Amino acid sequence: MVDPKIEQVVQFERTRPDVRGDAHPKKLLRAIEEDGDNLAKLSDQHIFSSDQFDRGTLLQLFRLAAKYEANPGRFSTSLNGQILISAFYEPSTRTRLSFESAWHRLGGDIMSITDRSTTGIAKGESLGDVAEMFNNYGDCVVLRDSQEGSVKEMMNALRIPIINAGNGIDEHPTQALADLYTIFKWRPDLVTDNPGEPLNLCLVGLPSKMRTVRSLLKLLCDFPEVFASVTIVNDFSREEMFAPGQLEQLEESGLKIHTAGDLDKVLPEADVVYINAISWEDNSFKEYGKVFHIDAKSPLKENAIVLHPLARGEELCTSLDGTSHNWYFSQARGAVFLRMALLTCLVQRAERVLDVI
Amino acid sequence: MVDPKIEQVVQFERTRPDVRGDAHPKKLLRAIEEDGDNLAKLSDQHIFSSDQFDRGTLLQLFRLAAKYEANPGRFSTSLNGQILISAFYEPSTRTRLSFESAWHRLGGDIMSITDRSTTGIAKGESLGDVAEMFNNYGDCVVLRDSQEGSVKEMMNALRIPIINAGNGIDEHPTQALADLYTIFKWRPDLVTDNPGEPLNLCLVGLPSKMRTVRSLLKLLCDFPEVFASVTIVNDFSREEMFAPGQLEQLEESGLKIHTAGDLDKVLPEADVVYINAISWEDNSFKEYGKVFHIDAKSPLKENAIVLHPLARGEELCTSLDGTSHNWYFSQARGAVFLRMALLTCLVQRAERVLDVI
Amino acid sequence: MVDPKIEQVVQFERTRPDVRGDAHPKKLLRAIEEDGDNLAKLSDQHIFSSDQFDRGTLLQLFRLAAKYEANPGRFSTSLNGQILISAFYEPSTRTRLSFESAWHRLGGDIMSITDRSTTGIAKGESLGDVAEMFNNYGDCVVLRDSQEGSVKEMMNALRIPIINAGNGIDEHPTQALADLYTIFKWRPDLVTDNPGEPLNLCLVGLPSKMRTVRSLLKLLCDFPEVFASVTIVNDFSREEMFAPGQLEQLEESGLKIHTAGDLDKVLPEADVVYINAISWEDNSFKEYGKVFHIDAKSPLKENAIVLHPLARGEELCTSLDGTSHNWYFSQARGAVFLRMALLTCLVQRAERVLDVI
Repeated sequence: MVDPKIEQVVQFERTRPDVRGDAHPKKLLRAIEEDGDNLAKLSDQHIFSSDQFDRGTLLQLFRLAAKYEANPGRFSTSLNGQILISAFYEPSTRTRLSFESAWHRLGGDIMSITDRSTTGIAKGESLGDVAEMFNNYGDCVVLRDSQEGSVKEMMNALRIPIINAGNGIDEHPTQALADLYTIFKWRPDLVTDNPGEPLNLCLVGLPSKMRTVRSLLKLLCDFPEVFASVTIVNDFSREEMFAPGQLEQLEESGLKIHTAGDLDKVLPEADVVYINAISWEDNSFKEYGKVFHIDAKSPLKENAIVLHPLARGEELCTSLDGTSHNWYFSQARGAVFLRMALLTCLVQRAERVLDVI
Repeated sequence: MVDPKIEQVVQFERTRPDVRGDAHPKKLLRAIEEDGDNLAKLSDQHIFSSDQFDRGTLLQLFRLAAKYEANPGRFSTSLNGQILISAFYEPSTRTRLSFESAWHRLGGDIMSITDRSTTGIAKGESLGDVAEMFNNYGDCVVLRDSQEGSVKEMMNALRIPIINAGNGIDEHPTQALADLYTIFKWRPDLVTDNPGEPLNLCLVGLPSKMRTVRSLLKLLCDFPEVFASVTIVNDFSREEMFAPGQLEQLEESGLKIHTAGDLDKVLPEADVVYINAISWEDNSFKEYGKVFHIDAKSPLKENAIVLHPLARGEELCTSLDGTSHNWYFSQARGAVFLRMALLTCLVQRAERVLDVI
Repeated sequence: MVDPKIEQVVQFERTRPDVRGDAHPKKLLRAIEEDGDNLAKLSDQHIFSSDQFDRGTLLQLFRLAAKYEANPGRFSTSLNGQILISAFYEPSTRTRLSFESAWHRLGGDIMSITDRSTTGIAKGESLGDVAEMFNNYGDCVVLRDSQEGSVKEMMNALRIPIINAGNGIDEHPTQALADLYTIFKWRPDLVTDNPGEPLNLCLVGLPSKMRTVRSLLKLLCDFPEVFASVTIVNDFSREEMFAPGQLEQLEESGLKIHTAGDLDKVLPEADVVYINAISWEDNSFKEYGKVFHIDAKSPLKENAIVLHPLARGEELCTSLDGTSHNWYFSQARGAVFLRMALLTCLVQRAERVLDVI
């Protein structure tokens, strides 16, 4: 007989009441009407920057992501015969597995490169030649490189689509897409003709240096009416915390941008709290804002949701994990479906999953 | 024309008379009656320790493994749509490829992590958060980590099954399953109502430090009547060679445990000789028992079989490879089928392969 | 609305007028009659050296490669259920991805080993035991190892086929196959009963040290009538530039081998220019012939084609990329189809793709 003590250790539950961010993809599906035309342009584009998306394309991407999330196993052959080149020259497991999982879920094949030193680049091969090689071997590329200019250099020679999965301090567009997707899954009314109250967004991070923040702020520009206010919290001054032109772009879109240094003063009004502490600089990561910290005792609004691109450190305490504020795990789960939606469009397979195209 | 000398070099045989452990999976299939109920509990369990198996579950696992080994190509779609996260933070090719081959043979997809430094753990991410990430990206995890506590820490947060593929000096349960499976393929009568002579097992290794030995000894506890004696051979004293509680657990099960320091005195009575020289300590491997060695001249019983978890060094001489004692290559081959059986049950796909469930 | 400047950056073309080596696989398909018998011997051979191919087998391999290149998506299930072990112990992305892409395109599964230190070899495991392990886990092996003798040592114990993907300075047979395939796609008349003018081949490289050159020269021996002359250009003397026996093997086949030190004197007569600057010695790469260089201003014949095994450095200038001399990108593209053809035969799946066998 098996010792009950060991049984207790090895038994696990596959489903628990999901207090961590009830996803509501079906509500979002109903809130947005399908319009395949808005996805058509993605079939000949690289995904480089949040700047390249407009409102219509974003809504259709979110709708398709919600369709995938509501029907996880249904589209398992959509990418049959397609090969993804998964090139992560900067250490990452989270983003790499998120993309690879998305591609596998749709039935595609994958070739991984996880060590820069094994590539011809070590022999002095140009990125243009690496791109030409990729043209012959795969159908889509995902690239993370600490060297900011690599993805753009490859885009010039590529004849298959490439996704920027994080280039230095510059951008990480698919993370931002996943973040905004999560917000709309929580409040689908905001994309309908009958929206409820707009949101106060509190963003703890450094816009000049954190690529997830930079990419997200750009997307917010497409939905200025959704955000009553955007309050950026860090320990830099308003003059120093933005990259050149960044604040101007945000304000031109109609967003109300506030800045603050005291998090606990901002939290009581925040509907969405986004927090991040890490930026990728000089081939390594750097931490900012050590003084900022959220936990179960923070003065959060009762219905406030918390987002974090993960990996997290002490800035986001585990005491929040079991609360209804926790939408950061849902954010990570939804990111796979968002990437499924994007990848489907990039390799021209959208017609296999849309009802009308 | 092609130079006959080069033809001689490049020609190879796919099948040779299999002197290295005639597998007999079909005989084992006939010896055990199918009983799917005994596999049901595996569908909500992590695989952490040999302690969690009872006799009934073991026999059904061995039966299913034998079914796979007897019909290698038949079940090639059983794991369609399932994603394995293959995480090997400690150097390994043998065990990783064994698991990945098993998963591929059943039609599943794989994402590999072979470098600890590429994971968020390098950024200080907790194992609980890594587990939550795995929940979103895959359907099953296999983990080998020199840090003994990692797998248990992840088990707390995982909602998909994880297999401990070797955690420091602690356990390696699937290797033990493969070892016992091999013994029963050789002597299927021992699991019937009409067993022949029980076995004298000679085990060359260090129970306190070698995880393969620790896991195997636990499994023997479920079949005390199969083993007339278990003689453990190494250069430690009986007081020093066991971990706390280890010898007691073995003797409580009814096994007769002897210890010895002179291998050549034990071999003439041994039916099964299991030998291993390596343990994994402190993130590297350590060798024990340099004085112990088996070769074609060793005083083995005529029908004795030799097992080794591999990789081997000088303790198991290649002069035995071409003899009928060599069941260590069969052991490695059978390990793939054993893992196929286990993985099938863990991801709740057993109903696709069992006749009655 | 999206800023047109960013749209310009992210938009790309999937197809451009292909000035870089119009592939003509269909012309080659028509030029060679199918004869499956000539491929039969490959089903029980390792691929070790260019020496093991004869003319008949080469023509059928090229025909099958052309069939794949002319119908890229048609045979996507030919390797269903087959597992490739992709072992690259020497840094490589180009060759590894070329093989893995080929295997994926035919519907097979892959297990990759890219770090020698993770294998049992680090524990002192013999290559014979590694081979025995591969026998149990996969159906085909591709190996690149800077240690020249590894592939032969494994061939002795393997019961599944292995392809030498580059062993030190010795050989790289599949690269040579891809090179000759490219030449015949350009001039398919040369393998018919009614060939046009034979070719002057100019080969910039070091036959004694460059494995791609060594393997290619051997294949030329099977088609002496195709090459009016072979002129090898480097900065070594005729006595020093060949390995022992190398020049004799070439001359015995009927090839006219010239040597020269002044590239610009040879180019005006060359129909095919092959250039390479790198050899793999002592676990690292070494450059030769820094003085030799081709660019758009070189005195090339109007219809001359340029080949390079890639990766390239300054010896092959990017100014040639947009010219009709550029057949090196077509060479890389064709290499995938050539490998698809070879792999199909090795794992005994040719009957799934040939019309008559």
